[in-house]
Amino acid sequence: MCRWMAYKGPSVYLEQLLFEPDHSLIHQSLSARKSEVTVNADGFGLGWYDERDEPGLYHEILPAWSDCNLKSLAKHIKSPLFFAHVRASTGTSTNRNNCHPFGYENWLFMHNGQVGGYENLRWWLDRQLPEELYPHRRGATDSEALFLMMVANGLAEQPERAIRTTLRAVYNEMQARGIDEPLRFTSVLSDGQRLWAIRYASDHHAPSLYIKTFADYLVVGSEPLELSGEGWDLIEQDTITCIEAMNYQVIPLLLS
Amino acid sequence: MCRWMAYKGPSVYLEQLLFEPDHSLIHQSLSARKSEVTVNADGFGLGWYDERDEPGLYHEILPAWSDCNLKSLAKHIKSPLFFAHVRASTGTSTNRNNCHPFGYENWLFMHNGQVGGYENLRWWLDRQLPEELYPHRRGATDSEALFLMMVANGLAEQPERAIRTTLRAVYNEMQARGIDEPLRFTSVLSDGQRLWAIRYASDHHAPSLYIKTFADYLVVGSEPLELSGEGWDLIEQDTITCIEAMNYQVIPLLLS
Amino acid sequence: MCRWMAYKGPSVYLEQLLFEPDHSLIHQSLSARKSEVTVNADGFGLGWYDERDEPGLYHEILPAWSDCNLKSLAKHIKSPLFFAHVRASTGTSTNRNNCHPFGYENWLFMHNGQVGGYENLRWWLDRQLPEELYPHRRGATDSEALFLMMVANGLAEQPERAIRTTLRAVYNEMQARGIDEPLRFTSVLSDGQRLWAIRYASDHHAPSLYIKTFADYLVVGSEPLELSGEGWDLIEQDTITCIEAMNYQVIPLLLS
Amino acid sequence: MCRWMAYKGPSVYLEQLLFEPDHSLIHQSLSARKSEVTVNADGFGLGWYDERDEPGLYHEILPAWSDCNLKSLAKHIKSPLFFAHVRASTGTSTNRNNCHPFGYENWLFMHNGQVGGYENLRWWLDRQLPEELYPHRRGATDSEALFLMMVANGLAEQPERAIRTTLRAVYNEMQARGIDEPLRFTSVLSDGQRLWAIRYASDHHAPSLYIKTFADYLVVGSEPLELSGEGWDLIEQDTITCIEAMNYQVIPLLLS
Repeated sequence: MCRWMAYKGPSVYLEQLLFEPDHSLIHQSLSARKSEVTVNADGFGLGWYDERDEPGLYHEILPAWSDCNLKSLAKHIKSPLFFAHVRASTGTSTNRNNCHPFGYENWLFMHNGQVGGYENLRWWLDRQLPEELYPHRRGATDSEALFLMMVANGLAEQPERAIRTTLRAVYNEMQARGIDEPLRFTSVLSDGQRLWAIRYASDHHAPSLYIKTFADYLVVGSEPLELSGEGWDLIEQDTITCIEAMNYQVIPLLLS
Repeated sequence: MCRWMAYKGPSVYLEQLLFEPDHSLIHQSLSARKSEVTVNADGFGLGWYDERDEPGLYHEILPAWSDCNLKSLAKHIKSPLFFAHVRASTGTSTNRNNCHPFGYENWLFMHNGQVGGYENLRWWLDRQLPEELYPHRRGATDSEALFLMMVANGLAEQPERAIRTTLRAVYNEMQARGIDEPLRFTSVLSDGQRLWAIRYASDHHAPSLYIKTFADYLVVGSEPLELSGEGWDLIEQDTITCIEAMNYQVIPLLLS
Repeated sequence: MCRWMAYKGPSVYLEQLLFEPDHSLIHQSLSARKSEVTVNADGFGLGWYDERDEPGLYHEILPAWSDCNLKSLAKHIKSPLFFAHVRASTGTSTNRNNCHPFGYENWLFMHNGQVGGYENLRWWLDRQLPEELYPHRRGATDSEALFLMMVANGLAEQPERAIRTTLRAVYNEMQARGIDEPLRFTSVLSDGQRLWAIRYASDHHAPSLYIKTFADYLVVGSEPLELSGEGWDLIEQDTITCIEAMNYQVIPLLLS
Repeated sequence: MCRWMAYKGPSVYLEQLLFEPDHSLIHQSLSARKSEVTVNADGFGLGWYDERDEPGLYHEILPAWSDCNLKSLAKHIKSPLFFAHVRASTGTSTNRNNCHPFGYENWLFMHNGQVGGYENLRWWLDRQLPEELYPHRRGATDSEALFLMMVANGLAEQPERAIRTTLRAVYNEMQARGIDEPLRFTSVLSDGQRLWAIRYASDHHAPSLYIKTFADYLVVGSEPLELSGEGWDLIEQDTITCIEAMNYQVIPLLLS
């Protein structure tokens, strides 16, 4: 199980969210090390928006707590909208091309979950990608393939429809192939302005998704960033949470 | 341009070939550092046969001269048939999945050359791979895709035919797509007993391929392992060199 | 807390001990990932004896379960006496020079434990190393410094005395500096023939040390390699276990 | 031989200096790959000042041209004063702790050159470091040791004196030990406001040091960043170049 968080608000140093909260993503890694929970030691990544056209990306295969660069970058990079992800591989190898978040033009995407029977499905998934997007297929993960399928399905024009179409196509193929394992998909996308957070699982056991609105910013993530959990709302399954400025709206995913 | 060597003979410690000759692969890397020639600093790999069913594989993304493990492994691993490769990327990223040699069951393959317009061709190449081989498509290189196409084309049954069929199909597609850049392919394959070394280029500028028979062993490689070059035969272009025991035979590749 | 194992017996493929037992070192890492226990994701290492003068060494900073090379090496390297170690850093950085086992000439050493207040002690420890051994001080760990102190204190001539002298000197300096944290030291040394396993802690909370004699081989380690734990003897604290051929003898460490 | 550059001027994206000039540091690496010159493939680093108290640091052991993160960071990080360094090891191992620039509080330092007979001198050098600075001795390079000696010798109070005292002490010890190889030291230091660039060699063969004043910024480096070389002044040997705002003054180093 991976973990991730996305921040939207006034421009802040990444460390304020990554290191300082008492249950920050790095604290979650550290306590994972102390064995309370699953360990996320198979790479991590950052994606952040600033005044450039495309977001910045940083991927590393070391455990987040071992990366001497991360601490310095988080202390010096400021952003009004950023993603952070710590990975626990569900099978594909640990290299930077397999680390989240994934970027495409002005879009960022990251994912926690699994595509059941992925080894059996990868050949089919890669064949869903149109030729013009194929140069962006750099790694071998299910997550990257789903992201590029969403791009192919019109993410830029109709994001909610692209999400639905993609998940439906993947789930249909899983059923056609007699794959019993579920499709679980707790993810977030951004175009640099808005965010879409999805919580879905074909077996209704979707990984958790939390959101909290603070005084002047908002965080969505796989877990609360505070041990108290106070003010963190658990989003229902089978939904898309559309975030714009400081407001959000939870709409049904309506896959079937 | 990558560099590689393959050894066949009595079982030896790898260091005897990798480090000791005055123009060994590691010396070639070191002198490359001193700027006489192209630098091979984008990863390297070893593949070696012993009494196990499948060959051993070792891949590293550091320059060969920086890898503290390589020196120790080369001092302790013995083999009667091994491959070594130092990489200079022609575009794909530096990660272990992109390092040669590639293994499939009892086969090893490594390559120096280029598939012209590969970025334009990768989508098509991946689609040539049958579903049952797709789990072995771990990286993103042209080399790995060509190897798996050869496997799909019957490498185990009729190796020479599989090589020809694969190169012909790739070159035809390059022409169909109007790719002007050449297909260059100086490679070696082994099933653990025999070796097949190919030297081919669609523009007749194939990377070099040398062979030398010593008292009781034989080496084939991209360059002589001795500065003197004495006794190293440059293999002609458009050929397959079939090596069995200590003998070899150069046959025409006959692509068209 | 690190974990380690040492094997002595007929020459075997490393995988037979590293991967196959139901609580092997790699299984321990994997279950650690599933959060039962401390995670050892800060690098690992192998040291193995064969017919060469000095043991082979392999160090990697990735978690053991992520290293595609380890599985292949463990399948192809045979040894009658080898060490394996998975690291959980107590502060020093994750790089190969900080990974166990450490080698010096024909000796291997690896360690689980801690030198209390090490940051405060490192300056003093480095100054205990004689000039001729200093080129072997490659990393920054307490473990490497203690090993080189033992070498300086006559490890080759009188191993038990060298161990005692070193631990006593370090503990005295800790007391002189008013360091309250304990000195804990559960370690193993070998000269390629015999092994010395030490279990010691100044606060009598030494990390565990187990030994089991099988039909024709012997394993000593931080934990049993079998979930049943059957036949694994927990060695008492404040002792040195001297292993020769298939026999071992537990003698008091007698520090004070 | 390492290569480095330092920029001072209005805040710019690092890529404008690192990638865009026709002989930028990355271009120098790329042409090195094409074998015109020495290859710098043993790691690299960035240090940059912004509004934080201490400069940012980024170190990587991959060749600069292989690092997918570098391109993104250089596109998104802005700074009015930054250092960049590509390393060609003179012996110490390739790990992040050995990569320049080195940081200490508000100071940055990077170096091109060599301390003759360093293996013979390291024991002595480490002993020159006062206990309170020893936690900052993270790697094993001569460069880091010299930097910390300068700090110990009063860099913050009297930088020119600290530089002289340190170089004199090191050179005297080299002579006392009968080391024939030279001490060569082409380096730059900054406190975040001013820069000090040193060009010195005991054998009068100091690595080159160039400076150029542009319309509103200034660059000092081991080589010109433009192939034309126009307007780049080669600084004389045995000097310290003191840079403040957009002005610089070359003063004699006066070691003896």
